[in-house]
Amino acid sequence: MPSQFLYIIDILGTIAFAVSGAFLAMDRKLDIFGVLVISFATAIGGGTLRDILIGNLPVGWLQNDTTTIVIFCTAIVSIFFAKHLKKLSTTLFLFDALGLGLFTIVGIELGLTKQFGMGICIALGTITACFGGVLRDVLLNQIPLLFRKEIYAMGCIIGGLIYFLLRKIHLPHDVITIVCILIIFFIRLLAVRYKISLPQVYDNDNKK
Amino acid sequence: MPSQFLYIIDILGTIAFAVSGAFLAMDRKLDIFGVLVISFATAIGGGTLRDILIGNLPVGWLQNDTTTIVIFCTAIVSIFFAKHLKKLSTTLFLFDALGLGLFTIVGIELGLTKQFGMGICIALGTITACFGGVLRDVLLNQIPLLFRKEIYAMGCIIGGLIYFLLRKIHLPHDVITIVCILIIFFIRLLAVRYKISLPQVYDNDNKK
Amino acid sequence: MPSQFLYIIDILGTIAFAVSGAFLAMDRKLDIFGVLVISFATAIGGGTLRDILIGNLPVGWLQNDTTTIVIFCTAIVSIFFAKHLKKLSTTLFLFDALGLGLFTIVGIELGLTKQFGMGICIALGTITACFGGVLRDVLLNQIPLLFRKEIYAMGCIIGGLIYFLLRKIHLPHDVITIVCILIIFFIRLLAVRYKISLPQVYDNDNKK
Repeated sequence: MPSQFLYIIDILGTIAFAVSGAFLAMDRKLDIFGVLVISFATAIGGGTLRDILIGNLPVGWLQNDTTTIVIFCTAIVSIFFAKHLKKLSTTLFLFDALGLGLFTIVGIELGLTKQFGMGICIALGTITACFGGVLRDVLLNQIPLLFRKEIYAMGCIIGGLIYFLLRKIHLPHDVITIVCILIIFFIRLLAVRYKISLPQVYDNDNKK
Repeated sequence: MPSQFLYIIDILGTIAFAVSGAFLAMDRKLDIFGVLVISFATAIGGGTLRDILIGNLPVGWLQNDTTTIVIFCTAIVSIFFAKHLKKLSTTLFLFDALGLGLFTIVGIELGLTKQFGMGICIALGTITACFGGVLRDVLLNQIPLLFRKEIYAMGCIIGGLIYFLLRKIHLPHDVITIVCILIIFFIRLLAVRYKISLPQVYDNDNKK
Repeated sequence: MPSQFLYIIDILGTIAFAVSGAFLAMDRKLDIFGVLVISFATAIGGGTLRDILIGNLPVGWLQNDTTTIVIFCTAIVSIFFAKHLKKLSTTLFLFDALGLGLFTIVGIELGLTKQFGMGICIALGTITACFGGVLRDVLLNQIPLLFRKEIYAMGCIIGGLIYFLLRKIHLPHDVITIVCILIIFFIRLLAVRYKISLPQVYDNDNKK
């Protein structure tokens, strides 16, 4: 049951990220192939980097046709939804926030199966959740949003810490998973709703 | 014999890509070391990503001094050819198109030796052929050409599909290889000659 | 003893690079999380790429909590030093030059334990030393400094060649290490002091 649950989480997160990648790529006027690649990179970028770093090779999506098919179909559907993009901006954002929570937990759980400590597990969760967006931004030639705006990765880290806290008090696994996904989801929601950002740290005189 | 044939393909493709990388780097006024690195990244980027994704480590060019030497010499020769750059733009383009076909097949064949299915093999072929150019563009700080202009990767995908079709009808291996390389080569030629692009998919009101 | 020596080298190099990454990220007005990530990427980027290319997985910093903790603390300290940034620009540069030498030797020595030849070892050393900076620049959306300004990687290559020369004449290992680190350090110093650059190689008429 838990592994099946994890599987559904994975598919849902993949769809959420593929949609957000496709929408941003269309916004930048890429051609259809470009939209497909950015959609793909956004959806599997985080998991791929995590798999490479821990030596889980071939990487997940090569071992699993479902992921590839899901992303492909999502990207195609996204392209046909393009005209409705503006109306869907809230949905797009909810997708993204949900994916953020989902992937963080997937990364943490994979780290646990590999016997890594808490710090590394949370780092792996954050990488899984956030690196797809970083890769998307690098490919689209902009400084990753992640580094500039609103609380994003910080939500993953907080959610990850709570995951290990709840684990200490022996809550059922599925409860922990759902609670943590929702926590990360709501941190992201609140951060955007109330425009909460991390402080910038810079020197006033050394601009470029 | 076929493996020897594959080997020559590999060298030729490497030269073609190293030249195109070096020329673009010189166009951007990098110093000699920068030209060498971009030339190298363009030539081995696709194969390196493919090797990492499938866990074929150490990656190919670490196991094979020939590749490194070939790229190094190609980059040096390219630098001395710099003054003749403009006269060679057609040659440069032909090199690039040939490399595109060559690397696609190399990637597909490696996928087959690892028992991957058709879809994954074609994806690996396309990554092998196209990712060097993506890496080059990311390092040179521009949105990858691949995502914006003309049919490029689509030729690899079509060539890959035809590879598996010809394989079904049991043509000799070397014939299949040559035919598919030429198909990808001519798709690229025709795409540039007649300025055939994939349609863009975008929303008119959400520019940035 | 030598392995302990290598370990201290690794820590010192990590600190040097984390500082330089954090300072550049603050200069670009990233938020705290962005500064942490860029600091981290600069410090472990080179070693991570090296580990991935040679299949040394999980990559080093996942197997070693010390690295992660050192970078984290360094980044935090760097953030609080931000106001003193300008006064520290010389120190920052010395840190960077020292890290350059340190990491080159770490990379070469790892290559030797894996039985690679001289050329590959020097390439691995140069990747270890320089790729963190390339990754930093790619994430900050600028053409890597490495490719444009002053002798940087060339110092690593020269230092690497001297490493193998000294090894031929059977000097003690620690002496070789220190001498080569200092050579790379001083090449960098002299290059910046006297503004020595590699020649650019380009075509005058094909600008962009």
